[in-house]
Amino acid sequence: MTEAKTAAPRSAVTDTTRSPFARLRPVPIGAVRLDGGFWAPRLELTRRVTLRQQYEQCEATGRIDNFRRAAGTRGGDFRGRYYNDSDVYKWLEGAAYALASGPDPELARTVDLVARAIAGAQDADGYLNSYFTFERAAERWTNLTQLHEMYCAGHLLQAAVAHQRATGEPGLRDVAVRLADHICATFGPGARRGTDGHEEIELALVELYRQTGDRRYLDEAGFLLDQRGQTPPLLSGTDYHQDHLPVRQQVEIAGHAVRATYLACGLTDVYAETGEAALRRASVALWESAYGRKAYVTGGLGAHWAGESFGADYELPNERAYAETCAAIGGLMWSWRLLTLEGEARYADWMETALYNGILSGISLDGESYFYQNPLADRGRHRRQPWFGTACCPPNIARLLLSLPGYLYSTSDDGVWVHHYAPGEVTVAVPGAAAPATLAVETDYPWEGSVHLRLRRLPAGAGRWTLRLRLPGWCEHPELRLNGRPAATAGDLRGGGYAALDREWAEGDEVTLELPLRVRRVVAHPHVLSNTGRSALARGPLVYCLEGVDLNGVDPRDVTLPAGVALRAERVPELLGGVVRLRGEGVLGPPAGRGGALYRPADGGEAPAGEAVALSAVPYYAWANRTPGPMEVWLRTAGGGG
Amino acid sequence: MTEAKTAAPRSAVTDTTRSPFARLRPVPIGAVRLDGGFWAPRLELTRRVTLRQQYEQCEATGRIDNFRRAAGTRGGDFRGRYYNDSDVYKWLEGAAYALASGPDPELARTVDLVARAIAGAQDADGYLNSYFTFERAAERWTNLTQLHEMYCAGHLLQAAVAHQRATGEPGLRDVAVRLADHICATFGPGARRGTDGHEEIELALVELYRQTGDRRYLDEAGFLLDQRGQTPPLLSGTDYHQDHLPVRQQVEIAGHAVRATYLACGLTDVYAETGEAALRRASVALWESAYGRKAYVTGGLGAHWAGESFGADYELPNERAYAETCAAIGGLMWSWRLLTLEGEARYADWMETALYNGILSGISLDGESYFYQNPLADRGRHRRQPWFGTACCPPNIARLLLSLPGYLYSTSDDGVWVHHYAPGEVTVAVPGAAAPATLAVETDYPWEGSVHLRLRRLPAGAGRWTLRLRLPGWCEHPELRLNGRPAATAGDLRGGGYAALDREWAEGDEVTLELPLRVRRVVAHPHVLSNTGRSALARGPLVYCLEGVDLNGVDPRDVTLPAGVALRAERVPELLGGVVRLRGEGVLGPPAGRGGALYRPADGGEAPAGEAVALSAVPYYAWANRTPGPMEVWLRTAGGGG
Repeated sequence: MTEAKTAAPRSAVTDTTRSPFARLRPVPIGAVRLDGGFWAPRLELTRRVTLRQQYEQCEATGRIDNFRRAAGTRGGDFRGRYYNDSDVYKWLEGAAYALASGPDPELARTVDLVARAIAGAQDADGYLNSYFTFERAAERWTNLTQLHEMYCAGHLLQAAVAHQRATGEPGLRDVAVRLADHICATFGPGARRGTDGHEEIELALVELYRQTGDRRYLDEAGFLLDQRGQTPPLLSGTDYHQDHLPVRQQVEIAGHAVRATYLACGLTDVYAETGEAALRRASVALWESAYGRKAYVTGGLGAHWAGESFGADYELPNERAYAETCAAIGGLMWSWRLLTLEGEARYADWMETALYNGILSGISLDGESYFYQNPLADRGRHRRQPWFGTACCPPNIARLLLSLPGYLYSTSDDGVWVHHYAPGEVTVAVPGAAAPATLAVETDYPWEGSVHLRLRRLPAGAGRWTLRLRLPGWCEHPELRLNGRPAATAGDLRGGGYAALDREWAEGDEVTLELPLRVRRVVAHPHVLSNTGRSALARGPLVYCLEGVDLNGVDPRDVTLPAGVALRAERVPELLGGVVRLRGEGVLGPPAGRGGALYRPADGGEAPAGEAVALSAVPYYAWANRTPGPMEVWLRTAGGGG
Repeated sequence: MTEAKTAAPRSAVTDTTRSPFARLRPVPIGAVRLDGGFWAPRLELTRRVTLRQQYEQCEATGRIDNFRRAAGTRGGDFRGRYYNDSDVYKWLEGAAYALASGPDPELARTVDLVARAIAGAQDADGYLNSYFTFERAAERWTNLTQLHEMYCAGHLLQAAVAHQRATGEPGLRDVAVRLADHICATFGPGARRGTDGHEEIELALVELYRQTGDRRYLDEAGFLLDQRGQTPPLLSGTDYHQDHLPVRQQVEIAGHAVRATYLACGLTDVYAETGEAALRRASVALWESAYGRKAYVTGGLGAHWAGESFGADYELPNERAYAETCAAIGGLMWSWRLLTLEGEARYADWMETALYNGILSGISLDGESYFYQNPLADRGRHRRQPWFGTACCPPNIARLLLSLPGYLYSTSDDGVWVHHYAPGEVTVAVPGAAAPATLAVETDYPWEGSVHLRLRRLPAGAGRWTLRLRLPGWCEHPELRLNGRPAATAGDLRGGGYAALDREWAEGDEVTLELPLRVRRVVAHPHVLSNTGRSALARGPLVYCLEGVDLNGVDPRDVTLPAGVALRAERVPELLGGVVRLRGEGVLGPPAGRGGALYRPADGGEAPAGEAVALSAVPYYAWANRTPGPMEVWLRTAGGGG
């Protein structure tokens, strides 16, 4: 085993350090420092404002009191929904990632208070769910299809593992172990059959296995996966619960989108430990179904409001996109796990798309309100809310953002991988070196396409190793320089892969990656009926949209983009927290028919060219942060749409 | 009062004979004979096959046994859902219309059997709902928002009125009166406040008022309307229940589409009796909202699956259209009521659109399976079913089709109105005549556009009166001949109105209306984002679609219609029960990008012209009656789409 394989997994999001079937190993959150740029201020806002606001919401809505009540330290009724514990767990997981990034004594105190409230609610037999206590204790494990007990348990396991990795304290991890043991004793070969209607426990049990080394948790995850799609069904037998087929036979992503992505994470995690090829095949096929035929250009997942579910292939309505923030996050978590297996860039590409668009749109620029759905067209009615009765999305986006440093880099036996570009520094083991190396990154990505990397520190003893830099799929002609000269890499330099720089590195070596940021007009597959005659604007990883507020009262629906439209990028520091906007000229029209008829006979040809209208497009993630008004991502395009 | 005003209302669908604020009066179903053509065989199939199949379903699913159980003549549990009584009532109403059209001893026996089962389930105090009996009697009227008690009651009232009008027997009408009295005693000024979460009772109470002359029922309908949109709300306070505003302030159609249309029927019915202008204003504004901005080109209503509800203005997704059969029917019933007020042709135009497209699609050509949703694009997965757990649509389409003869003609003080063209004969009072006149209609509408009318019998004494013929809105240049010569009418002959032939008529007079049936390419308002770059094909009142089965394996999504496409109509007697299909040539493409990418950079201009592909479009109503495959109404159109 190399040094990297035995390094401490401290604060990894998923610790594949010893996973036999994963090629990539984590770089802990604590080893990554972000300095300025796009992400550091956002993460700081999340830590300082969002975590605080969410903690207050959890207190105000009784979510933490529910634990105190279960512990007997407080009276009153259970408040809210039966799955409310999970929101507290996700908040805690996010807070743990924040603590892994750096000290925050006030946050640490709150974390401790919350962790103790949770621990106090655990029963002697290990059971822990504040809803199923006292008057409802008899209902425990009676309705696995609907009541989310294992789902809540899974989030506790994830939070507890993150907590131990961040703080070094085993207390909450021990709570999680007792709960996991209770579940293993209740469900499994020789005990009850059953699995949860809302997946989550599977991926969590694998992570607990990684943290504790106790193989029972891995086996239990496999057992729970195996319970889906049985005849007769143990759940609903429908794809809503991914219960329509045994998991190894599932090749089309279907049903509730968050559940489906969490299931896929669990599948992939179990594969990473067991190497069972059928699990990997299912995960890859499902991923190709999800991202090859059912994903929004923003990385959003889930076309249907009814059932919060995936639609058919290419069925991607814009106004009625469900695209739940949690589903985009679940998709990122899943793509990350697949990326970890072999280092295929397509997984990182979709992670990036989701991160900069369909996930980031889920939170306001001030960090205090949230989208549950992320539509791609709107009339100005869809606005972020400070909280929800079902509040899965707010703490999910907090934990995702705060875990982001853990998703930027990986290591493998032969070197270091840079998946996503953000300014700062990473301390990372390199093959042969006695101590970690330090790599500094300077970039204004995604606003500018230059990424400058410097080996700030390279301990003696490092031999030949490979530095891999992702060449984003959106970039047609990346350029790479090593110490000022064009770099020799294996294979062509094209977007959609990793440039591999394999050499004997020296301290001070510099690599510059140039990713030209042409404004792109994107069209959809012709089977995406919603996007016929439309195209979307993008620059780098960012998808853009037109908002009414930028159009002097013109409705984006009344604008046609000329197919050859010239758009210029313009940095505007004072706009929306600082963005690059796209400016150009569209055409008003086509005009509505006489009297604004809903339907009318076609006039047989092209609509006459309309009056020019100045366009200003802003990044999709930033929409709905100003005066409410109509918004569109997919713009009517003369002659050159999808 | 004229003769027409005092004629027996026998078997009218809505009896506005004595309604002071309705200009048009009904022509009873029994006065209309349909011979051949488009509708007579369909109605015959509905009577002979559909009613039988639905009765068997009602028996097999316990819907009629539920009444027997409530009567104490049978044991066991209540079966099915709490609103299942309503399906039996709608079936009975449809069967009554069938009996009004002509004798059917076997059907009459079944009707009698069902009517007696219903009557047997009535409590001594008049209450009648088979769900709320025995163990659930204590729950009566405890949850008006959700439990549909008045909704079920309303359907009984409609069925009972139809039954009395068809058979002359007052038995079931008396059951309805006792139930209505119970409701009036329970809810009203000086009694409880409250109204039903699912509208229906209002229109039914007005019809019972018309049948009995007892004004309490009209007042009660008004009372129940007034209970919506109160502060604090009596229902949910949301537009799902049309409870967000007082009904007189509702101007945007919203929420659950079936409920919204039934509410609008009730509003209009109350106006027809009371003349309260605010009710009419609300109904007209809601109708303009529904049909001016929220209706599918098929006459379908309801854009959203979630909540089975209307979407925003111009939000009309095709694949995920909800377009519940019941909502299109509710819309027809509402349009009919507005038509009755003043005889404005726009209401009859949308009735026709819904009838020939979005309603008729709700039933299979063999009359034994049904759509609940009527999407405008599909992948071959959406198929008609023989029944549903919630089976509102099957009996609703049966009763609508069997009541159709009652929607074809009206009378007014000054003459006769022909709204819809079907071959056969109508016996109708004309001003001044001592006995009814008989008007014979010959036409092959909607396949051909010639309509030939002849005054087969005109009793002595008829003076000058007006024959009004609807000129469909889809027809640009109608022609009218009287006894072989161009007819003089008031106003221009243009589609979208009534041609009024005002003269001293003579027996044997002949009128020929020519409605040229050009194949039309229709585009949508530019704000209908789903239809950008697309157009729909129509001929006469029929909307067409492409089905994969007609395209030699080509997916309709891969076809582009040239803007100037020439389409020829071709009668095919052996296809789909006999249709006119449209033939022409489309172009394959645009091609998908390399590897079938979901998203790709635009190539900057028009896609190259593809290979030619022979197109054969069939009427929308007939889709999904052959091999499952993809279907599209809105076709990608080069350069000339919406």
